[in-house]
Amino acid sequence: MSRSPNAAIAEIKSMVLAKVTPTEEDYTSARRVIDEVACRVAAEAEARNLRVRVEVEGSVAKDTWISTDRDIDIFIIFPEGTPKEVITEGGLALAKAGGGGSWTLGYAEHAYVEAYIGGFTVDIVPASEVSAGRLVTAVDRTPLHTRFITERFDERMRDDVRILKQFMKGIGVYGAELKIGGFSGYLCELLILQYGSFEGTIAAASGWGERTALDYMGHYKDLPLGEVFDSPLIMVDPIDRRRNAAAAVTRQAYATFIAASRRFLRAPAAEFLLPEQGATEPSEIELALSRRGATVLGIEVGCPRVPSDILWGEVYRSLGKVAKLLGEHDFTVRDSAAWSDEDEAVVFLLELESAELREGRVHAGPKVWFAEETEAFLAKYERDTRVLDGPYVKGDRWYVELKRKYTDAAGLMEGEFGRIGHSKDLMAEVSKGFRVLSGRGLIDLARRKEGFAEALLRMARKRPPWLR
Amino acid sequence: MSRSPNAAIAEIKSMVLAKVTPTEEDYTSARRVIDEVACRVAAEAEARNLRVRVEVEGSVAKDTWISTDRDIDIFIIFPEGTPKEVITEGGLALAKAGGGGSWTLGYAEHAYVEAYIGGFTVDIVPASEVSAGRLVTAVDRTPLHTRFITERFDERMRDDVRILKQFMKGIGVYGAELKIGGFSGYLCELLILQYGSFEGTIAAASGWGERTALDYMGHYKDLPLGEVFDSPLIMVDPIDRRRNAAAAVTRQAYATFIAASRRFLRAPAAEFLLPEQGATEPSEIELALSRRGATVLGIEVGCPRVPSDILWGEVYRSLGKVAKLLGEHDFTVRDSAAWSDEDEAVVFLLELESAELREGRVHAGPKVWFAEETEAFLAKYERDTRVLDGPYVKGDRWYVELKRKYTDAAGLMEGEFGRIGHSKDLMAEVSKGFRVLSGRGLIDLARRKEGFAEALLRMARKRPPWLR
Repeated sequence: MSRSPNAAIAEIKSMVLAKVTPTEEDYTSARRVIDEVACRVAAEAEARNLRVRVEVEGSVAKDTWISTDRDIDIFIIFPEGTPKEVITEGGLALAKAGGGGSWTLGYAEHAYVEAYIGGFTVDIVPASEVSAGRLVTAVDRTPLHTRFITERFDERMRDDVRILKQFMKGIGVYGAELKIGGFSGYLCELLILQYGSFEGTIAAASGWGERTALDYMGHYKDLPLGEVFDSPLIMVDPIDRRRNAAAAVTRQAYATFIAASRRFLRAPAAEFLLPEQGATEPSEIELALSRRGATVLGIEVGCPRVPSDILWGEVYRSLGKVAKLLGEHDFTVRDSAAWSDEDEAVVFLLELESAELREGRVHAGPKVWFAEETEAFLAKYERDTRVLDGPYVKGDRWYVELKRKYTDAAGLMEGEFGRIGHSKDLMAEVSKGFRVLSGRGLIDLARRKEGFAEALLRMARKRPPWLR
Repeated sequence: MSRSPNAAIAEIKSMVLAKVTPTEEDYTSARRVIDEVACRVAAEAEARNLRVRVEVEGSVAKDTWISTDRDIDIFIIFPEGTPKEVITEGGLALAKAGGGGSWTLGYAEHAYVEAYIGGFTVDIVPASEVSAGRLVTAVDRTPLHTRFITERFDERMRDDVRILKQFMKGIGVYGAELKIGGFSGYLCELLILQYGSFEGTIAAASGWGERTALDYMGHYKDLPLGEVFDSPLIMVDPIDRRRNAAAAVTRQAYATFIAASRRFLRAPAAEFLLPEQGATEPSEIELALSRRGATVLGIEVGCPRVPSDILWGEVYRSLGKVAKLLGEHDFTVRDSAAWSDEDEAVVFLLELESAELREGRVHAGPKVWFAEETEAFLAKYERDTRVLDGPYVKGDRWYVELKRKYTDAAGLMEGEFGRIGHSKDLMAEVSKGFRVLSGRGLIDLARRKEGFAEALLRMARKRPPWLR
């Protein structure tokens, strides 16, 4: 049945590596950006009489980056024991200097500068020298991650990380950010370390079960890790046993990686790693929706100006509330998603089994032998103007049929979307107005916004490209 | 809160009794019919040299009948030890003679004659003298029931039985026949015996719980009766401890009696016993359906010529199968009922949440980590022409969306109603043809058949008349 796919995989790997490995030119560009930032930081540090060390972190430092990921992390490291205020104020001043003329402020666990220089997004992060025992924030851990990986990786492993990252990208699960809920670059590196290679990782993932717990350093010995961490995938961070390096991986991303890995092993193909990237035709979306008889509802609001992870956290919370609201009004929600250009618009997408319900809804009351409950039920509904029929006895219960407040989902959204407890940021946009879109309205929006068309098509046609 | 309703109930009782107690004329007519039958049976018995005794049974014998129930049970009783063949053949010959010129054969546990004489339906039943220890059939028990009640009842109790029967009629639960699934006349008598009066019965039923077990003769002492009989209401037959005299009472009838009893105690009204009997206007049905946005589907077939209880058994079995079929095709069945004139037509009625579904239906597959099941699922659906979308991973499962065979309930009925394993009797009618009715089709049928209009209105507007 299963022929050895080794040769096919080796061929795919070298083909993909040729595409994704940074070229000499890429390396030169990165080096130039780093030198430029380091130089500016050093000058400012001297001017301010601050003793700091500039260090490159992340995938560029580890040489596990792929050429399409143009992110550089530069840390400005103060000596151990530097007062927090000095790092916060002085550090930020140095970072701003490093960013040159144009930068924006970012906040993760503390402030940093994000600059766009020479084709790279450069994060310039003030930090303190830290020893392994006193890790507190993500910033503290980053330099240790860089060191941990650098010390253990050779050329082949770096290549395999690039391949694994590209595989994750191809199937849509690359990135620990909330928007994706997938596998971080560091997690990809740890998987290569754990399983030795790309092929080893894919083969292992093919056999993963409902939950998987990995502990490369053997921090936990006998303890069942599932009792410590509550995630489908647990990868104990080698440099900090309290942290699950796979905490961001959602069940959807975890299951998708398992499913795609198994599929890839059975039928290796470059399309897993390099899916076709054609422009989405709105007519394709219309066709996919109409052949399934599917109904998609969209709600478009303005986009709050907040950092990406905060935005997506708030968007997904609101999305969950919208789906819950629809369910409470008896609409069957088949799928939900959110899209944003992180600039102008956020669109909530809800696929419904049907967008219209009949006038009446059946409401169950108590069993007939519960005297008090029956009296209360009858007293409540006997003369209620919302009652369309009943009360009546069916089986052994009282029932009543009430007039729905909303018989169509669009009307429900018009009436209630503004009241469902959005975050303050989103609420500010909602209160400026929102648009409920369906049918033509969605297709028109897809015509205007390319990225949105793709999101809508993903809902309209769910079969993933890697499942040929 | 609760004022004593005694005076009101007493007033209702005398008003209702005046309506339902047989008049002198009714008694004279009944006596004349009985004498006529007895005379003819005696003559035939003499001619055939058979020694038999003719005895009136049932509510006429017990004097618990109400004037609208014009049923007379006449038993032709052979001496104990008469061979079975003699009873079967000779008895039936006598019964036919008793029926005079026009009769039909009925079968319960054995054959009897049903004749329509002088405005009464007369059942003439051959039977054997039997002692209490050797009861085998319903026929054996009947004379003992008559004796048991007659010995214990006085005038007031007979009146209270009439009132209770009329109450059961008014709320639609009078009759042990399958069509009704309610309270037999004998059960009404036993309830009056158990609780002493109509008021006592109503008060007791108001307090009945999920199950009620009554054992007037104390046949069972400590044994929990629920372990012996599997019914919501258990009334151990005083003359046969193996029999539940309330076995016919469905959960619906049981709960309706409880609910109506409680309601009657709170607000006594003659309408419980004598509901308004206006002709049903088809426009009333249309209005009730349209205000609820309800969809009712009907299937009309010819009526098999079989005894009533056999017909209704078969009809209800088919009705259950129709509802199951609709559910299997994702239609939400809100209510179901059957109607028949027991002559020309049977109509199955199904109330649906919606009569139309979209083109696609979501079909869940295995969780992604079940390797074999996944392979089988993908192999099955990857190139299936019914697949509209997928396979795809959602949450931790594989799914696929398939094209429905039927997107509307009427089409499903047209296509499948003929194949759902009806009884032989019904199947013979179905194979001659059937009609699927909805909207106007149903209203037209209601216009043509008065009894059907009432059944359809009961589905369209479920609030019972007694719940003012």
